[in-house]
Amino acid sequence: MARYSIGLDYGTNSVRALVVDVADGREIGSAVWNYRHGDAGVILGGDPNLARQHPADYVDGARHAMRDALAAARRAVRGFKPEQIVGIGVDTTGSTPMPIDAEGRPLAMDRRLADEPAALAWLWKDHTAVAEAAEITELARRMRPHYLAKCGGVYSSEWFFSKILHCLRTAPRVFAAARSWVEIADWIPAMLTGTQAPDRLTVGVCGAGHKAMYHDDWGGYPDAKFLARLDPQLADLRSRLADKAYAIDRTVGGLTAWWAGRTGLRAGIPVAVGAIDAHLGAVGAGIRPGTLVKIIGTSTCDMMIHPAGQPLADVPGLCGIVPGSILPGCLGLEAGQSAVGDIFNWFVNTLRPMGRAGTHEALTRDAAKLSAGASGLLALDWNNGNRTVLVDQRLTGLLLGQTLYTTPAEIYRALIEATAFGALTIINRLEKYGVQVRQVVNCGGIAEKNPLLMQVYADVTGRPMKVSRSSQTCALGAAIAGAVAAGRKAGGHPSFAAAMRAMTGLREQVYRPSRRAHAVYRELYALYMKLHDAFGTTGFKGNLHDVMKRLIAVRNQARA
Amino acid sequence: MARYSIGLDYGTNSVRALVVDVADGREIGSAVWNYRHGDAGVILGGDPNLARQHPADYVDGARHAMRDALAAARRAVRGFKPEQIVGIGVDTTGSTPMPIDAEGRPLAMDRRLADEPAALAWLWKDHTAVAEAAEITELARRMRPHYLAKCGGVYSSEWFFSKILHCLRTAPRVFAAARSWVEIADWIPAMLTGTQAPDRLTVGVCGAGHKAMYHDDWGGYPDAKFLARLDPQLADLRSRLADKAYAIDRTVGGLTAWWAGRTGLRAGIPVAVGAIDAHLGAVGAGIRPGTLVKIIGTSTCDMMIHPAGQPLADVPGLCGIVPGSILPGCLGLEAGQSAVGDIFNWFVNTLRPMGRAGTHEALTRDAAKLSAGASGLLALDWNNGNRTVLVDQRLTGLLLGQTLYTTPAEIYRALIEATAFGALTIINRLEKYGVQVRQVVNCGGIAEKNPLLMQVYADVTGRPMKVSRSSQTCALGAAIAGAVAAGRKAGGHPSFAAAMRAMTGLREQVYRPSRRAHAVYRELYALYMKLHDAFGTTGFKGNLHDVMKRLIAVRNQARA
Repeated sequence: MARYSIGLDYGTNSVRALVVDVADGREIGSAVWNYRHGDAGVILGGDPNLARQHPADYVDGARHAMRDALAAARRAVRGFKPEQIVGIGVDTTGSTPMPIDAEGRPLAMDRRLADEPAALAWLWKDHTAVAEAAEITELARRMRPHYLAKCGGVYSSEWFFSKILHCLRTAPRVFAAARSWVEIADWIPAMLTGTQAPDRLTVGVCGAGHKAMYHDDWGGYPDAKFLARLDPQLADLRSRLADKAYAIDRTVGGLTAWWAGRTGLRAGIPVAVGAIDAHLGAVGAGIRPGTLVKIIGTSTCDMMIHPAGQPLADVPGLCGIVPGSILPGCLGLEAGQSAVGDIFNWFVNTLRPMGRAGTHEALTRDAAKLSAGASGLLALDWNNGNRTVLVDQRLTGLLLGQTLYTTPAEIYRALIEATAFGALTIINRLEKYGVQVRQVVNCGGIAEKNPLLMQVYADVTGRPMKVSRSSQTCALGAAIAGAVAAGRKAGGHPSFAAAMRAMTGLREQVYRPSRRAHAVYRELYALYMKLHDAFGTTGFKGNLHDVMKRLIAVRNQARA
Repeated sequence: MARYSIGLDYGTNSVRALVVDVADGREIGSAVWNYRHGDAGVILGGDPNLARQHPADYVDGARHAMRDALAAARRAVRGFKPEQIVGIGVDTTGSTPMPIDAEGRPLAMDRRLADEPAALAWLWKDHTAVAEAAEITELARRMRPHYLAKCGGVYSSEWFFSKILHCLRTAPRVFAAARSWVEIADWIPAMLTGTQAPDRLTVGVCGAGHKAMYHDDWGGYPDAKFLARLDPQLADLRSRLADKAYAIDRTVGGLTAWWAGRTGLRAGIPVAVGAIDAHLGAVGAGIRPGTLVKIIGTSTCDMMIHPAGQPLADVPGLCGIVPGSILPGCLGLEAGQSAVGDIFNWFVNTLRPMGRAGTHEALTRDAAKLSAGASGLLALDWNNGNRTVLVDQRLTGLLLGQTLYTTPAEIYRALIEATAFGALTIINRLEKYGVQVRQVVNCGGIAEKNPLLMQVYADVTGRPMKVSRSSQTCALGAAIAGAVAAGRKAGGHPSFAAAMRAMTGLREQVYRPSRRAHAVYRELYALYMKLHDAFGTTGFKGNLHDVMKRLIAVRNQARA
């Protein structure tokens, strides 16, 4: 009898449930449920930096999405029964922390705090805590520099302690009512297994390590002395956080009878430790040492793993290096570009070149007719700052080389190229610090739908670009965690290696670099790095006198 | 009885005739005649650099435009008679040289050469002679550096000898058939007065000085030894060029009976020495020492005069410094920006932001709502290279500061600001070398029709922006030359000073700088100059690390 697992993938606007055959990774049922609260699931405020979610959407979402995915599986596979599901995995956005009471109930569900936005879940893209992030970074730089060495040198306003400290300062009533704070990546598995009380909660090392400066080497979360310098109440809170965080090979508990009743699943099937979406996406894309997984969407996450036994220096500018954050027994490395698809969306939806005629499809079609270097343009991909390797939000976009004849398609292509140069910069940084990139596997909507972008990435990096077979790598990664949580005896897998071997794969089409285009892009990349260093670092010395002239020379050659 | 003069203004696509009251500058009749040949008057070829005109359009244009302007004057002023016209002035594009035979007949009118594009007039924007320009510049740098000191250090592909040398090399049959070469600014007055034979031709110092390295100090045109190094035939040609060039206070001759018969004008009325359009535009705008006249169109010409008696060093980067080229007795100084309106036209017509909704009017309206610095953007105005002060065609546009929210109107405003920074750079260069700018008078379509642009120019430069009263300053300047050619006895004016006092004026509205906006723009201009020097010069040392961060700081302050 076939066995299946479920991956639950909590995104920004909706949750997806995916039913996967543990034998071969076949996706037999899928359903998406859109959150009910706020603006497409995001609760906004007067402050444009504020972005929250209501935890009721997490509960309702699990119920609806699982029920609908199971119904879809029933339609797709004759004789399919929910009892064939052997395990569940969960991935969510992050850092999305949420205050809970002593029973693990979200404060947002407490009527007395119904008017308090601070009682909601603080969505990853909430940027209200900019000042607190700067304060934490500054204190760590002076007092605990090793905390920063694992997260690229800067603690972000998007992360756990920045948000909690901001709540403490601006909504003290909510802070006081909270017994503890929890990443939703931890709370949702706990909610499914009835283990959400703070003293029973199983915390994942993915969220803790990447977003909350947790590291076994220094005894877990930042020490009380450090936190007390920010605020004594934060040091108090630390004593109520978990002592230990775990990789996704651990089980949080068994599905409760309540949930079994509402879904038709068997009570007691294991739910794996949760993780942040991109990390389980890397699992769903079949990550292994030497494989760079790029999840390309509005922004990118670039994930690698490094065997824990082999030495690795801190890599400057990397968002995070956390033992076990992607797979147990390996260092999880996370990098990323703050905007990729968002830059193309900005160009198409905000600038609206050519009005309605300037669609992504039309621009892509025209841009594909151009050869490397023919536009004479060069852009920086910093419209939303630079995450890796500069870790600097206060950077902006740049376009140069435009003449009186520059067309929208030329600019569109230059923007694609800029993101490719940014991607190459991440690869170079990884390799410079000893993490060899032997293959690149792309996933996400853009990787699947835009062959031009994939070809430009191949030509710019000089490396073949592969694409993950699954269109839902995050949900698939969660389902893999569910299959491993089930274990071999229950019809799952004994290890992630085995599960990934069985359940992941690549598409047949591989984008291979053109030697000619790569030669042109090597020239352009040298100019990109000149701009990168001139505008992005304090160390650049020299002038940029040759940049425009060399672009013109490359253009004339490309057009000749 | 009122007296009038006619200004004939030969543009790129059409010729205008303007009938002006010499007593007060009132424009009583005006007519435009569109050239019949080529694409809107411009004959193109396979080479995109090629741009020619047919001289038949100059002859037909004079006839039609004068006749129609006189008819318009008759309708406007009761009792007006063509006999009241006392003189004619002519301005044209330039450098637009043309080969002629021994009778002064354009070779294009010789049927044997009808298929030869080289026999046509070589329009100012013909760029086929790039290689020859580089060769002339290089030779002059080694052999006659003083030739270059008066034209910004670089001899242009648009100019007289570059084009002739290119003809010699690529169309030797045409070169051999030419008795001489003449700027159309000289040929058209000659054609009206029957003095077009090479040995009778009166050459204007405006074209000769700015475009053909003519200077009385070194005996007129470049010496034969220099020209022989380019080609011995060029040295031969020199002996058939005029020995002496004249300012516009000189008369070329009297209108022929043929022309009188065709227009109703009196035979024998004087025709003034011709000049290039922008130079007579400066006259029509009332130029005097201390007044910068900006003619703002697709590009700009920035004109000043300096009393000949007062010492003046060479100003590096200025297009030209030529005695008598604007007004007799003064040095004529010419600077300019290679693209102004053309940049806005590129944005609107080629990028077409927002499709049909993104008109100049809509973008201007939205851009006017923004305050200085609020966009966070900074641009360089180099989409067509930089004429003054860098004299470098191999430069391109640049835009930086864009985020995921940057709007078309913000970019439109940033492009306007970029041209204003370019304008300020010219003013600063003039003043640095001892040419004080005490007032700025703007003319041209954009100056009249775009109050936002004028206000931004005032705010950026910190100076009031005045606008010339006439909408046709070039034609008005030509008419002023006609009135001076007539002289006081015939009812004209005894001098340019008197004629300009009577016939020119300013509009009432003056755009005055806002102190607050100017303070912001001082900050932005410092950043503009940093980019200017980094990309445009070899001397820049340092980095640009602060540019994006300061723009963000300025933006946040402007929006607060």
